[in-house]
Amino acid sequence: MVKYDPKAWFALIFHSYSRQVLRLLLPGLIFMLVYTFGIAYLILDYFKLHFVSTTAVHSLLGIVLGLFLVFRVNSAYDRWWEGRKLWGLLVNNTRNLAAKVSSFLPESDTASRNFFAQMIPNFVVAMKEHLRKGVNLADLDIVEEDFLKRLKGKEHIPNMISLMLYERVNKLYKDKELTGEQLFVIDKEIKEFSDILGGCERIKNTPIPYSYSMYIKKFIFTFTVTLPFAFITEFGYWTIPIVLLIFFILVSVELIAEEIEDPFGGDTNDLPIDELSEKIKNNVREILLRD
Amino acid sequence: MVKYDPKAWFALIFHSYSRQVLRLLLPGLIFMLVYTFGIAYLILDYFKLHFVSTTAVHSLLGIVLGLFLVFRVNSAYDRWWEGRKLWGLLVNNTRNLAAKVSSFLPESDTASRNFFAQMIPNFVVAMKEHLRKGVNLADLDIVEEDFLKRLKGKEHIPNMISLMLYERVNKLYKDKELTGEQLFVIDKEIKEFSDILGGCERIKNTPIPYSYSMYIKKFIFTFTVTLPFAFITEFGYWTIPIVLLIFFILVSVELIAEEIEDPFGGDTNDLPIDELSEKIKNNVREILLRD
Amino acid sequence: MVKYDPKAWFALIFHSYSRQVLRLLLPGLIFMLVYTFGIAYLILDYFKLHFVSTTAVHSLLGIVLGLFLVFRVNSAYDRWWEGRKLWGLLVNNTRNLAAKVSSFLPESDTASRNFFAQMIPNFVVAMKEHLRKGVNLADLDIVEEDFLKRLKGKEHIPNMISLMLYERVNKLYKDKELTGEQLFVIDKEIKEFSDILGGCERIKNTPIPYSYSMYIKKFIFTFTVTLPFAFITEFGYWTIPIVLLIFFILVSVELIAEEIEDPFGGDTNDLPIDELSEKIKNNVREILLRD
Amino acid sequence: MVKYDPKAWFALIFHSYSRQVLRLLLPGLIFMLVYTFGIAYLILDYFKLHFVSTTAVHSLLGIVLGLFLVFRVNSAYDRWWEGRKLWGLLVNNTRNLAAKVSSFLPESDTASRNFFAQMIPNFVVAMKEHLRKGVNLADLDIVEEDFLKRLKGKEHIPNMISLMLYERVNKLYKDKELTGEQLFVIDKEIKEFSDILGGCERIKNTPIPYSYSMYIKKFIFTFTVTLPFAFITEFGYWTIPIVLLIFFILVSVELIAEEIEDPFGGDTNDLPIDELSEKIKNNVREILLRD
Amino acid sequence: MVKYDPKAWFALIFHSYSRQVLRLLLPGLIFMLVYTFGIAYLILDYFKLHFVSTTAVHSLLGIVLGLFLVFRVNSAYDRWWEGRKLWGLLVNNTRNLAAKVSSFLPESDTASRNFFAQMIPNFVVAMKEHLRKGVNLADLDIVEEDFLKRLKGKEHIPNMISLMLYERVNKLYKDKELTGEQLFVIDKEIKEFSDILGGCERIKNTPIPYSYSMYIKKFIFTFTVTLPFAFITEFGYWTIPIVLLIFFILVSVELIAEEIEDPFGGDTNDLPIDELSEKIKNNVREILLRD
Repeated sequence: MVKYDPKAWFALIFHSYSRQVLRLLLPGLIFMLVYTFGIAYLILDYFKLHFVSTTAVHSLLGIVLGLFLVFRVNSAYDRWWEGRKLWGLLVNNTRNLAAKVSSFLPESDTASRNFFAQMIPNFVVAMKEHLRKGVNLADLDIVEEDFLKRLKGKEHIPNMISLMLYERVNKLYKDKELTGEQLFVIDKEIKEFSDILGGCERIKNTPIPYSYSMYIKKFIFTFTVTLPFAFITEFGYWTIPIVLLIFFILVSVELIAEEIEDPFGGDTNDLPIDELSEKIKNNVREILLRD
Repeated sequence: MVKYDPKAWFALIFHSYSRQVLRLLLPGLIFMLVYTFGIAYLILDYFKLHFVSTTAVHSLLGIVLGLFLVFRVNSAYDRWWEGRKLWGLLVNNTRNLAAKVSSFLPESDTASRNFFAQMIPNFVVAMKEHLRKGVNLADLDIVEEDFLKRLKGKEHIPNMISLMLYERVNKLYKDKELTGEQLFVIDKEIKEFSDILGGCERIKNTPIPYSYSMYIKKFIFTFTVTLPFAFITEFGYWTIPIVLLIFFILVSVELIAEEIEDPFGGDTNDLPIDELSEKIKNNVREILLRD
Repeated sequence: MVKYDPKAWFALIFHSYSRQVLRLLLPGLIFMLVYTFGIAYLILDYFKLHFVSTTAVHSLLGIVLGLFLVFRVNSAYDRWWEGRKLWGLLVNNTRNLAAKVSSFLPESDTASRNFFAQMIPNFVVAMKEHLRKGVNLADLDIVEEDFLKRLKGKEHIPNMISLMLYERVNKLYKDKELTGEQLFVIDKEIKEFSDILGGCERIKNTPIPYSYSMYIKKFIFTFTVTLPFAFITEFGYWTIPIVLLIFFILVSVELIAEEIEDPFGGDTNDLPIDELSEKIKNNVREILLRD
Repeated sequence: MVKYDPKAWFALIFHSYSRQVLRLLLPGLIFMLVYTFGIAYLILDYFKLHFVSTTAVHSLLGIVLGLFLVFRVNSAYDRWWEGRKLWGLLVNNTRNLAAKVSSFLPESDTASRNFFAQMIPNFVVAMKEHLRKGVNLADLDIVEEDFLKRLKGKEHIPNMISLMLYERVNKLYKDKELTGEQLFVIDKEIKEFSDILGGCERIKNTPIPYSYSMYIKKFIFTFTVTLPFAFITEFGYWTIPIVLLIFFILVSVELIAEEIEDPFGGDTNDLPIDELSEKIKNNVREILLRD
Repeated sequence: MVKYDPKAWFALIFHSYSRQVLRLLLPGLIFMLVYTFGIAYLILDYFKLHFVSTTAVHSLLGIVLGLFLVFRVNSAYDRWWEGRKLWGLLVNNTRNLAAKVSSFLPESDTASRNFFAQMIPNFVVAMKEHLRKGVNLADLDIVEEDFLKRLKGKEHIPNMISLMLYERVNKLYKDKELTGEQLFVIDKEIKEFSDILGGCERIKNTPIPYSYSMYIKKFIFTFTVTLPFAFITEFGYWTIPIVLLIFFILVSVELIAEEIEDPFGGDTNDLPIDELSEKIKNNVREILLRD
């Protein structure tokens, strides 16, 4: 995530969009430029057609399209914000789990303390990478001898790590290091790990419904492709900048919505999950390993 | 659910809608074509009428209609997204239930382990089919001798399965294989099964209110049927493509909303519940039956 | 609730509204017909006035009015959907309560089993009628000797029934038929009964604020009454169908919103609460009284 | 709260607004009448100016203003509805607390029964008055000897009452009249009292942000003050009714929003909290003091 | 937070915005004045150009822009309101924690009472300053000897304080001054502290996505910069006030949204968190230290 000052108007107006948006916007703008120029040339200079044109149709459809785009970008923003909330919860949860484990275990049980000080951050790192390209086992701290052996070949690494956490807590309970009540309290935190992970996977794996996505793109396309005919008779070649302006405004929205919608990547708009997992690691270790 | 790349503009613009949408959209388009042509011919060439026409009425009503359609499609989307959330919860819950049962039961109790490894996926499969055409008992794993006998003739299969799960847990509790606290923790997961099922049934069985649905369709009909009169005097036969364009844009929305609204079918827009239940089966077995 | 196919466009377009909507819509339409005709006759043929008219004012106000109506109908829909959710929860809760009671009580305690098998449906029936015209004690199953005596003359029957359920559970607890934990688990379900009832009463008893309701009606009235003046000079007697069309579209929305808003009646749009309570009765008995 | 029939169109259209709305609306209307007349006279008859005027600017800004007003009134409505929900919860909670206390205490402990039968309604009355002008101690039932002495001079009466409830429950627990589990269950209800009170205080004490409120008022003012210039050249003295109509429609919304926003007063739009607290008193006594 | 009367229309209309809004609005207005005048002079008097101009493009785009701004300001308002809710919860929670600690501890344990009477307000003060410029340790009450030593150099002061609270509670539990149940109940309140803090940090640290913010500013800029061309041919130098009016209305919204969005500062629109923390301090001490 780029850090920026939301009040720096000048910079925000003249700074260009992210590469991803531009990669799609520029060809579109060039196509529209050529297309509108072609239409204008054919109608005005080649065939010299004269026909009644109206902006009424595009005015009506434009408002409807605008409504769709506003809702579109807001539902994308809602996902982004939900993703942010889930990661915020994760920060809290890891903190709470570490604090609870730390106060429940005796100072002397360094083995267990080390286990949790490494496994909690391992879960966060695995979850983060799972939401991106998949987990690279080399990114994880090796906790126990057969740690990597148990994870190798598994499809869903964060799940396995959460299972290991669970087993360890259960073992402590059976060894009477934790009372029933303490088990209960700790169990609640680990269960929330799995809910947070599930929520993030849902955001990641469920784009908006196929037909809906198709509809908005078809609508934008139909709208912009017929746009020149609404202005050509009255404005001649001035139609070109007008069409480009409207195209730019409308298509940007959809592109930005697409970019925001999947907030777990490494792009400028994405959530600062790298920083958050680093922060979690430091917090957890500070709490559990005070020397 | 069709997997698609939401950023593939070209494909999305030129790919046609799902069969369901087209089955309703095409006849409408053909009717409007014939109807508008008829109106145009009668007014322009047959009766040669001249009257003042205005786009003001349709411009005003069009914005109101647009507002309704945008809200309509968004409330449909909300249902779809709620359905997705519920299935996401189901994935989490089954995972948690399996993990808890697995760590609570001794390794040696393979009978109970097998029971849960088959009954949890059975519940998911039964729920999925219950939300579609009804459960075919042949799709279920046979767990115990009188399993099919107890289900035969029952109307609500998933409920019966959840009851069986509940009874088994209770039996383990009475046999002192589970402590009171463990009963409590497991009970919470099974209760959530029933809440998820209830939520999905609600989405499935409650279309938007009759009058509201009727109103939107009457509005669209009245709007498009009177549309030619707003353009005919000024645009002549050009009225036909204009009317068809507006008709296409407006009616598609309602059709897409109808399709999205019921997200548990097997269509392109529907949720990937077949894949999810397969995934649940594998997860649950991996956790409970590690050899 | 009328069962209908939301995809049957033809039927929905030509089927008429519910009696309730028509009872209010028809007189309005007739009044507007006479009124607009009167205005038109006076201006065009009697006084033969000529004045500049504009649709700009009504176009602006019309969009604002449209916005209000869309929000109005959506907030009505939200109440309707909340009511549906609450009844969905009730179905789940009664099912859970029955299942829990059934597995906690010994098979031999038929007295208690019968008590719950009759009292849970009694609560649902009483709640349903309480949300309509008030409870008729004859609709309830008589459970114990002094059952009717305790209910007679009480204002709030469902509350009394929930209190009786509570007392019975407490008695079982004091008689050591239920453990403390089981009391806790059952108590939670009965508490939810009261929350569901409270939610439904809130929806039932709280119409939208007086001023807000008044404002929307005043706005619609002012808007439609001044509408003829915007069209009369340009369209002559064609003003009449135009005004009627706009009147029909706008007033229907408010009428439908009013109808949806109170979802517990017996009308076409209302929730299927008769069916739901029948279904609950069958479910509960099937679970508790298996012979 | 005025009881009204939301379907009585005739009454709602011709009944005038609440005094509060009129007290602000009437001077505004008179000012606009004089102002618009003055502008019209100066331009048309005194200076006899002729200039091009357009409704385009006000049409655009009017839609934006309309959007703001619709959102404004809906966020006010949301607060009102949240306040209603909180009071609905209070009705439920007091009912539940009374029922639980009643079934936990022996029939013979009339001292404690009387205590709760008076203190629960005391809390509700104190909360209600706290949300209005402040609590008058004379409105409370005197429960114990030093009751008034403890409350005198305290700023936050409902808090003190909730503390007293809490202390009594704790005392019963220490005297072994309540078990640990019963303490837990009762504690939950009293905690919710404090959450409900906190929610109501938040709604009461937090108007919408200063700048936002200022902006909407500045916008309305600028819009209406420049409105005559958009119509004057084309419509002459007819500008006056047009401007008054638009002024009336727009300003009413803001006034109604202001009125709805604070739902705990004694006005026509306010919530029926007097009736609700009377109802709670009767319910609680009926449950706790059955003789 | 400025206290104001939301019904004082006169004051609100003529009072100027906060310094922050004006600091950005004034230069913009001056730039637009100079720019529009320049354009007008060049077109009308220098080059004496004549071209067809239309308000149709800006009318369409203006509505879309208006929609974005309305949603923008409402999502900013939602954050502000969420922040308010969190602080409202904090008031409740601190009150509850104090009440519980007070009734659980014996009257004689003044050491612990003093500890909580100082540490709870310390947490609130530290949280408040953490959300602003960072915590100044001099603002905290010194509770124990090594209090400052433990906090010095730590990055996240409120977290450390919450950990200290947690440790103290645990110590009381191990010393048998608190029962397991009492530990459980108190633990719940302290856990909520951490959730509230996490929520506030999220609001504070996550501005709206970079691209989205950029898009709105680019849109406003493009819209206002091309605005003069839409009016110039028809309105001549009157274009200047028209453009300034529209600029003022549109840009204010974005500026107000920016200001509201971060509600924890010390500005006029910000939440009254100074007062709230003072109030909490008094409440907590009143409850814990009654002499």
